[in-house]
Amino acid sequence: MPFTTLDDPPLKIDVDLRVHLGDQIAIGPGKAQLLASIQRTGSIAAACREMGMSYKHAWLLVDSMNGCFKSALVEAVKGGKTGGGATLTSLGVEVLECYRHMQALAAEAIRPEVTVFKRRIQES
Amino acid sequence: MPFTTLDDPPLKIDVDLRVHLGDQIAIGPGKAQLLASIQRTGSIAAACREMGMSYKHAWLLVDSMNGCFKSALVEAVKGGKTGGGATLTSLGVEVLECYRHMQALAAEAIRPEVTVFKRRIQES
Repeated sequence: MPFTTLDDPPLKIDVDLRVHLGDQIAIGPGKAQLLASIQRTGSIAAACREMGMSYKHAWLLVDSMNGCFKSALVEAVKGGKTGGGATLTSLGVEVLECYRHMQALAAEAIRPEVTVFKRRIQES
Repeated sequence: MPFTTLDDPPLKIDVDLRVHLGDQIAIGPGKAQLLASIQRTGSIAAACREMGMSYKHAWLLVDSMNGCFKSALVEAVKGGKTGGGATLTSLGVEVLECYRHMQALAAEAIRPEVTVFKRRIQES
C-alpha cells in the first residue's frame, strides 16, 4: 500500500520513495507504514495484525531500519498493564516525519503536471 | 528498476510514480521503462530482450496503456528492411515526457530534505 497518494479524479497517483543505503532500503513505503503502525498501536505485534504481516518479517524490517540510522528508530517498552510493547524513539519519529514530508513535497511538486496529464487520458 | 533516482551519496533515492485510472495503472515505472525501450529499439521484441520480459507480458502492458489514453501510445510499423516493428505515437512520446517530467519535479522537490535526512543515517 502506498503511503502518499495524490487524488485528482479520475486519476490517482501514488508517490513512492525508497531511500537506499548501500544494498539496504533504509526506508520505503512498507517500512514507513510499519513505523506509523507501531506509533499508533504501541506494539509490533499489533502493527503486524493491522498490516497482515508476520512478526518475523516485521522484526527483520525494524532491525534493518535500526541498523541504517545513527541510533534505533524503534525500541521495546517493558512492563505496564499491557505487558510491554514497542514505541518509536525520538529519532524514529523524526525519520517518519521527514519521509512523510518528502512524499508530500513530491506530490505537491507534480500537481501542476497532473492537469496536463489528465487531458491525455481516456474519458469514461 | 526505478525510472528516476536521486543520487546523493551515501543515499540513493528512487522516485516511483504510479498513475492509476480506475483499477488499471495507466503508467508506472515498468510501463514507462517499456515505452522508453520501444522508443529506443523500435520493436516490442527488442524491448522485451532488453528488459528480460516475455513478449506476452509486454504486449499486455502496451494494450493496457493504449486503452487508458485518448489514443494509442504504441503502434505497429509494417514493412521495411527489418520486417516491421513498433514505435511510439506522438501521444506516446508526450505521455513518456510528461511522466519523466513529473519524476524529475518530484526528485527536485525532495532534494533539500535529503540533506536533512542524511544527518540521521549511520555513517559507514
